[in-house]
Amino acid sequence: MSLLTVGSVAFDSIKTPFGKINKTLGGSASYFSLAASYFTKPAMVAVVGDDFSKTDEKIFANRKINTNGLQKAKGKTFAWGGEYSFDLNSRKTLFTHLNVFQNFRPRLSSEHQKSKYLFLGNIHPTLQLDVLRQAKGAKFVGLDTMNYWIENAPKQLAKVLKLVNILIINDSEARELAKEHNLMKAAKKIFAAMNPHPDPLPEGEGVKTLVIKRGEYGLLMLSPASERSVPIYGRPKDADKSARYKYALRTFHLPGYPLEDVLDPTGAGDSFAGGFFGYLAKTNDASWANLKKACVAGSAMASFCVEKLGVAKLLNLKAAHINQRLKEFKKLTHF
Amino acid sequence: MSLLTVGSVAFDSIKTPFGKINKTLGGSASYFSLAASYFTKPAMVAVVGDDFSKTDEKIFANRKINTNGLQKAKGKTFAWGGEYSFDLNSRKTLFTHLNVFQNFRPRLSSEHQKSKYLFLGNIHPTLQLDVLRQAKGAKFVGLDTMNYWIENAPKQLAKVLKLVNILIINDSEARELAKEHNLMKAAKKIFAAMNPHPDPLPEGEGVKTLVIKRGEYGLLMLSPASERSVPIYGRPKDADKSARYKYALRTFHLPGYPLEDVLDPTGAGDSFAGGFFGYLAKTNDASWANLKKACVAGSAMASFCVEKLGVAKLLNLKAAHINQRLKEFKKLTHF
Repeated sequence: MSLLTVGSVAFDSIKTPFGKINKTLGGSASYFSLAASYFTKPAMVAVVGDDFSKTDEKIFANRKINTNGLQKAKGKTFAWGGEYSFDLNSRKTLFTHLNVFQNFRPRLSSEHQKSKYLFLGNIHPTLQLDVLRQAKGAKFVGLDTMNYWIENAPKQLAKVLKLVNILIINDSEARELAKEHNLMKAAKKIFAAMNPHPDPLPEGEGVKTLVIKRGEYGLLMLSPASERSVPIYGRPKDADKSARYKYALRTFHLPGYPLEDVLDPTGAGDSFAGGFFGYLAKTNDASWANLKKACVAGSAMASFCVEKLGVAKLLNLKAAHINQRLKEFKKLTHF
Repeated sequence: MSLLTVGSVAFDSIKTPFGKINKTLGGSASYFSLAASYFTKPAMVAVVGDDFSKTDEKIFANRKINTNGLQKAKGKTFAWGGEYSFDLNSRKTLFTHLNVFQNFRPRLSSEHQKSKYLFLGNIHPTLQLDVLRQAKGAKFVGLDTMNYWIENAPKQLAKVLKLVNILIINDSEARELAKEHNLMKAAKKIFAAMNPHPDPLPEGEGVKTLVIKRGEYGLLMLSPASERSVPIYGRPKDADKSARYKYALRTFHLPGYPLEDVLDPTGAGDSFAGGFFGYLAKTNDASWANLKKACVAGSAMASFCVEKLGVAKLLNLKAAHINQRLKEFKKLTHF
């Protein structure tokens, strides 16, 4: 297998102004794997409780997702409930029951350890670090995190940041992580925190990249202007001075796909990451040009995700639908 | 002359967290003409008071802007003062002294009336309508408006909307005008309100286009999928039912140019319109493909505008700077 994700599998209860759904399959690993499954055969490491049924398992099986790493623990599956405001831009968490997820210790089989592409879903940085130590075959590692870890586990997060190739976060998270409002300046500070790599990756695979998600506005992907320029960021203790360094950022922008009917934003970010990494694993090419195409694949999957409640729209898409949307992204952005 | 704008010339007093400037040249016609002057020789119709000095006039002369239509009236020039919040996303108006602008009645000379491209800056819709009646040679007309006119002169605005080719407004204004949060649905409602044209424009020039500006997030340009499909919007009284119609919108997205240092957003929207219409007048081509390029030219001028306080950055740009930025927009968006 070439793509592995470690994250959560959950039962979500979602209320939006346009509908509601109870105890439906959710969690970062679910959205990620379903989205990735249209490009490659992804594997997941996650944990569920004894309330996780054969029907639930079948959702993954139908998409040929490798669930050998889906541990079953005594107790209930992680459950989350949320409610969205009218414009879907803000949501209120109604409840979070960690249940079996509380004692989740990801264990990678020898098979998992060979995965070349690895995505660390939004879990405690210490667990992400533990996975990274096991993932000996990983050549290109992506990371998601959130404001909770930025605030409550900054040291552990700083440690894991140095070990990944690509960080995929929201604009508010990028600003909080860098303590800087301007996103270009924030990106430079984050790159300083991501370098240098204590275990240099093989030549050509050591580029540090940042994807900043901006909801309906799309995303910015940024990277140092050239691989050669990476060393100028200096040692980690220089991070706070990084804004002094004068260098250009390689920047790519992709808008959100304009939709008339957005039903439920839950899982859009993980669907993006799934499409992104699925495309990378399929094409096995982490060049800048191909990372841009991966952004398009990810955005297409995110745009499908939000068109129905929960994971519904990700269950049986046709290749023609996906190709059509990829083409439309070109029409939307090229001039 | 091929490009004319009618709007305001003002003295602005601007306070931002990064600096302040008093009684500096401002107003929609000023920003528009300065930005357009890098592509064509624009003309303006506006009014100033007897405090408008030779030095102020020289700013326009240096950029070869035709100011034959700049009326001098007894009294003081329109004066505006504003202060921006830390992130520059919101501003507080400190004062608005309309002065001579209060009695502004735009009069187009026979020379002005021949202008093929016309941009109606943000003034009372009745004045915009009056200008349109005089502008007998206008083939492609753009319009700006604001929430104040949407709320206080909706009937007059509805009238003028039917007579223009392109409406350039902010996302919040588009939402308010259409009474619809979703921008794709809002666009359909606005197109319904813009059609049919009671005086059909010559073949190929009757397309209705909408540019929605989203600040740092860039813009969306939308148009009915094909010129043939315009009639389906039906009569104006069907406007409120327009969402029923099933048709695709031709959509183009362009991000804002990512800048590390934004000093002052004043005039960015008018600089966009100036670059957009300057490019159109220069190339004399209102096809969809060329409108996209005009968006890039406009966004480049807006990105320069915000890099210094007031109009400063628009006074002596080099062609090489502009070309460089146009190229960077391609790198930023193409994949």
